[in-house]
Amino acid sequence: MPAQATGPKVPVAIVGASGYSGEELVRLLLNHPLAELAAVTSRQQAGQTVAQVFPRFGSHPRARALRFSEPNAELLARQARVVFLALPHGVAAEYAVPLLKSGCQVIDLSADFRLRSAAVYRDFYAHEHPAPELLGTAVYGLPEVYREAIRGATLVASPGCYPTSILLPVIPLLRARVVRPTGIIANALSGVSGAGRKAELDYLFVECNESVRPYGVPRHRHLSEIEQELSVAAGEPVTIQFTPHLIPVNRGFSRRSISNRRVPSRGPGPGRRSRKPWAPRTDRPTLQSRSCDCSRGKALPDTKNVVGTNVLELAWRVDPRTGRLVVMSAEDNLVKGASGQAIQTFNILCGFPETAGLL
Amino acid sequence: MPAQATGPKVPVAIVGASGYSGEELVRLLLNHPLAELAAVTSRQQAGQTVAQVFPRFGSHPRARALRFSEPNAELLARQARVVFLALPHGVAAEYAVPLLKSGCQVIDLSADFRLRSAAVYRDFYAHEHPAPELLGTAVYGLPEVYREAIRGATLVASPGCYPTSILLPVIPLLRARVVRPTGIIANALSGVSGAGRKAELDYLFVECNESVRPYGVPRHRHLSEIEQELSVAAGEPVTIQFTPHLIPVNRGFSRRSISNRRVPSRGPGPGRRSRKPWAPRTDRPTLQSRSCDCSRGKALPDTKNVVGTNVLELAWRVDPRTGRLVVMSAEDNLVKGASGQAIQTFNILCGFPETAGLL
Amino acid sequence: MPAQATGPKVPVAIVGASGYSGEELVRLLLNHPLAELAAVTSRQQAGQTVAQVFPRFGSHPRARALRFSEPNAELLARQARVVFLALPHGVAAEYAVPLLKSGCQVIDLSADFRLRSAAVYRDFYAHEHPAPELLGTAVYGLPEVYREAIRGATLVASPGCYPTSILLPVIPLLRARVVRPTGIIANALSGVSGAGRKAELDYLFVECNESVRPYGVPRHRHLSEIEQELSVAAGEPVTIQFTPHLIPVNRGFSRRSISNRRVPSRGPGPGRRSRKPWAPRTDRPTLQSRSCDCSRGKALPDTKNVVGTNVLELAWRVDPRTGRLVVMSAEDNLVKGASGQAIQTFNILCGFPETAGLL
Amino acid sequence: MPAQATGPKVPVAIVGASGYSGEELVRLLLNHPLAELAAVTSRQQAGQTVAQVFPRFGSHPRARALRFSEPNAELLARQARVVFLALPHGVAAEYAVPLLKSGCQVIDLSADFRLRSAAVYRDFYAHEHPAPELLGTAVYGLPEVYREAIRGATLVASPGCYPTSILLPVIPLLRARVVRPTGIIANALSGVSGAGRKAELDYLFVECNESVRPYGVPRHRHLSEIEQELSVAAGEPVTIQFTPHLIPVNRGFSRRSISNRRVPSRGPGPGRRSRKPWAPRTDRPTLQSRSCDCSRGKALPDTKNVVGTNVLELAWRVDPRTGRLVVMSAEDNLVKGASGQAIQTFNILCGFPETAGLL
Repeated sequence: MPAQATGPKVPVAIVGASGYSGEELVRLLLNHPLAELAAVTSRQQAGQTVAQVFPRFGSHPRARALRFSEPNAELLARQARVVFLALPHGVAAEYAVPLLKSGCQVIDLSADFRLRSAAVYRDFYAHEHPAPELLGTAVYGLPEVYREAIRGATLVASPGCYPTSILLPVIPLLRARVVRPTGIIANALSGVSGAGRKAELDYLFVECNESVRPYGVPRHRHLSEIEQELSVAAGEPVTIQFTPHLIPVNRGFSRRSISNRRVPSRGPGPGRRSRKPWAPRTDRPTLQSRSCDCSRGKALPDTKNVVGTNVLELAWRVDPRTGRLVVMSAEDNLVKGASGQAIQTFNILCGFPETAGLL
Repeated sequence: MPAQATGPKVPVAIVGASGYSGEELVRLLLNHPLAELAAVTSRQQAGQTVAQVFPRFGSHPRARALRFSEPNAELLARQARVVFLALPHGVAAEYAVPLLKSGCQVIDLSADFRLRSAAVYRDFYAHEHPAPELLGTAVYGLPEVYREAIRGATLVASPGCYPTSILLPVIPLLRARVVRPTGIIANALSGVSGAGRKAELDYLFVECNESVRPYGVPRHRHLSEIEQELSVAAGEPVTIQFTPHLIPVNRGFSRRSISNRRVPSRGPGPGRRSRKPWAPRTDRPTLQSRSCDCSRGKALPDTKNVVGTNVLELAWRVDPRTGRLVVMSAEDNLVKGASGQAIQTFNILCGFPETAGLL
Repeated sequence: MPAQATGPKVPVAIVGASGYSGEELVRLLLNHPLAELAAVTSRQQAGQTVAQVFPRFGSHPRARALRFSEPNAELLARQARVVFLALPHGVAAEYAVPLLKSGCQVIDLSADFRLRSAAVYRDFYAHEHPAPELLGTAVYGLPEVYREAIRGATLVASPGCYPTSILLPVIPLLRARVVRPTGIIANALSGVSGAGRKAELDYLFVECNESVRPYGVPRHRHLSEIEQELSVAAGEPVTIQFTPHLIPVNRGFSRRSISNRRVPSRGPGPGRRSRKPWAPRTDRPTLQSRSCDCSRGKALPDTKNVVGTNVLELAWRVDPRTGRLVVMSAEDNLVKGASGQAIQTFNILCGFPETAGLL
Repeated sequence: MPAQATGPKVPVAIVGASGYSGEELVRLLLNHPLAELAAVTSRQQAGQTVAQVFPRFGSHPRARALRFSEPNAELLARQARVVFLALPHGVAAEYAVPLLKSGCQVIDLSADFRLRSAAVYRDFYAHEHPAPELLGTAVYGLPEVYREAIRGATLVASPGCYPTSILLPVIPLLRARVVRPTGIIANALSGVSGAGRKAELDYLFVECNESVRPYGVPRHRHLSEIEQELSVAAGEPVTIQFTPHLIPVNRGFSRRSISNRRVPSRGPGPGRRSRKPWAPRTDRPTLQSRSCDCSRGKALPDTKNVVGTNVLELAWRVDPRTGRLVVMSAEDNLVKGASGQAIQTFNILCGFPETAGLL
């Protein structure tokens, strides 16, 4: 990897760095050629070094030197130019407000700023939005869709694994009018790290190992943002059927969408024998072209191909018996489904190559 | 469990007992109060005792005494009254023909006799059916659907995990005309034992662990029998969308079907608040009533609840946003999805309580 | 299994039935031909049926009928003749005292009554023993060693997975003076269920999966009872080196002991080519003869051979290069290492066949 | 990572790149700032690109461009300056001979050149050594021990996971005469990838999951090189007790050694309260100082801390009850236990920083 460090590195901070996506942000930022991890915060871990909390980073000098601190927006604003929030829903907004006022750019990994409507937020999250005035400002951090808007943003709402795995393959199909906006069915399988580092019985090894279970049926919270973004792409309201499952892998996320093809199919979309992805911008030397790189040969997406990478692996099949398009994808729920995506957004914000620190 | 041994036990044999469903048949039959495991065959294991091949049965005196033999239909017919075939597709028919001629009853766990049409068999299995004259005789061994026909059968084609998990919940819905026969979508997640005990790279621990992958899209072989049976239930041709996945658990099978509800829903089917299963015979003291026992509280089916049992755990949710019915089920792919189901059929054939040896 | 139900079943109760060994006791007692599960208690689950708390028992009528109650010694004494305590250390003794006074027989799965000395208890458990007057009464519940004493006991301290896996193979060696009492080294690998059903970060799926770690080095609490019992067998004080590890399996326990052989070896012990176990009572039709049934062929003990069984699988090798004896064993930490062993003791207490309900 | 690319990159090749350690070499070399992956060979995969064989490298342009070729020593010698052999024992030597003659430097990951004596090789590997004349030339590739000799080597025999995990912690103890050379006991737990990518029943997911088993007791092949190197360090013949186990993780390797301390302990070794590692060269800015960085706080080595890294995590405890020293370590069996170690050696051979491409 050529280091393009022509100027000083950009100082960054992570608020709430002791969870799984926080840990993954640490991993990626410790190795980022153009970022300097200036501060990490965690109430429980304050005073410990990064290497003490995460022994697997013990060989990084920075991890041995940097200590967790109590989260303090004022202090963080002096230490960092870009702040990543890896906090629970509802808590993130509390930190975003003062950080933005202090002139930081904020990349929020929670759901707090992903919805455009405070009413929809209240409906799905069962409490008032803590900072509705910011909803108009925030940019939905899906680089392949909102690259230009991200470039000038101060607050980015970085989406998680469920929305990413559904939106990336389906938005181009809707835009190209290859599929009808009704009858989209999304089935998703999430690794256990998707549930976060929470001491709950449901996520104990013995409870998850040799177990597969659906949950959140029929109205998972992330439906709200998924349907919001699909509706924008389709230019009309889209309602989908969504079923998430928990499966016994650490990382990894597999999804299958089924859509009704318009007949006859038209536009740049996949025909039965087409080997080209339908995405309109595959020539760009960015992650998107790789994200949408279609699977080779007979292979279908497999989470083991994407663990540790910022790639969304993708394949589709047209079923001539039903006339439906089956789209399959796989991503690492902590990388392209969380922290890697946030770094990709960071790169755009800073004008860096989009894959810096992500290859 | 009181042993109802009023007469001598029924002598049974297993042909091809060294695979995973063969091993599970051995486990269940060693402990069956009304069956006597008279013979087990396997080309590779001939001469070894059952306890040598499967050390986990080492504490059973019968497992220490009984030796694997070469498969020999004539000899088997003298040793056993009922013969279980746990053989690959295509091979099973070769043994079924002479065993039936010798007067044995045959329960075949392969796909050889599940289709009613030799032409469909050729289409999906890519070779001529080896004994088409038997296709009219064979009974499809789904006890909850064909209980009466099984009672007088000589040849039962016992279905596997995919068909069982789809047919058991959906057939009553189609019969009761609660859902429309078009637009049924089935997503299935299978444990690795479903692939059989085969020395192939794809099923190595390192290849499966931390991996989730779809396969057989869009035309898995078992579609043929699933659609055959759904069509019978609906009284018209049914085509479904079916996507199987491999997930890293030993056993277990989880499935979700989505069907378009007829509006307004009618008949005995599930309404939004209904707590009663829609199956018409839930009062019968058989497996079916348990199979269809709806999940309690908020819990959804979980494979860990059914591992080692002959139960299909079942739940459904109506999604008012889409008008669809989401049916979720879980089974042990080696028990209700293979060997337990075959034992249930055996019990019916012999006039035993349906759950003998299965509780 | 012939049911020997000549009289009414023995009513039993489980105090603290919501943990992993409690759940396993429930499983075994629901199916025990000579016991009637009369009561189960759990503070958190009071009011729920057994089937609601453990959906996998949903097909048992008794599990659907029996409700968890608050633990109440007086009431339990009226409901049950034998009470199993599946409680944390320190809490068990509180229940044992009133239950014994009320005339119940108590089988305690905690460590409270395993040590003969209140001083050693204080040293290893860091608090005063809550009922030291009972230490002289309690019998150490290792049936293969204390069968006769168990027969007349009112209070049995049933040992867990670590002591069982070490004591069963090593006690006969020490008694037969085949190995020297110094230099015994025990390495143990425990499945995660051994840590109990506790909502702690360390036992989350993501923390345990793809992780292997030693813990409790060098002075695990169970050392106290292991050395106590080895010293009794050797007739002199025995100190061992003991290293437990946590490995990512649900159940299963593997152990390796290394002992210095006396040279020349003598007595009934294993010589280099000996195929016979060294245990003196292998002819008894009890679990012991099966426990000590030596492995066949080249196979070494494997936890997958014993999952769900009350068997301790055992093998040994003499290393001619070092003169040491390597003893390897495997057990299910929830069956022979906890609840199955307690049932075996129950069978002895009641005069039942030792393997009743355990085959 | 600062890229020190002052001159052109060193062209390297991998022979036998389709196995697990070959795949890991590919991963590390694709990202190495100072190496250029010039050729990869595999009989089965010839003609395919690296990205086709290993989809997880699909985002690397080099992986999409480079194709597997048939192994041909003459051709390889023209393409690469350093050749890595990731081949089975016995086959590696066939390629080493012509490659060395053509002027390449060879890093062999097999056991072919690890032993100094052709007679010991014959004894442990049951065939004649194919190139005994090279045994005197080869350097044992454990950088922390043979750094200086590696610098000038043309043929390096890079050790695998078992020797590495035992030699790295124990050699300094023997050299410093902290422990006695007799009575060393090594217990090792290996992830399944250690068995290689072989289509054998024993390594199927269903056979390994929920299974723990010892194997190769008492005389595993790698004992020969372990004892050879320990004897060199001790200055006298050393015989150890060694028990390998297979556990259900993909990667990871955990080991515990137990040694008899000399009494009184002396030299720079660990005393009971010592927090400093005993290694004499911890100040060197190389991997060794990190390898021997002692665990912090109460934590013991955990394979999850080292997965994907070239670090050997290490801790020790003195047991005052037995007077023994318990040394625990963890490594990634494919990195520090195979391919990462070979890259470390490559860096030394080329005069690069020892951790180049490994952080």
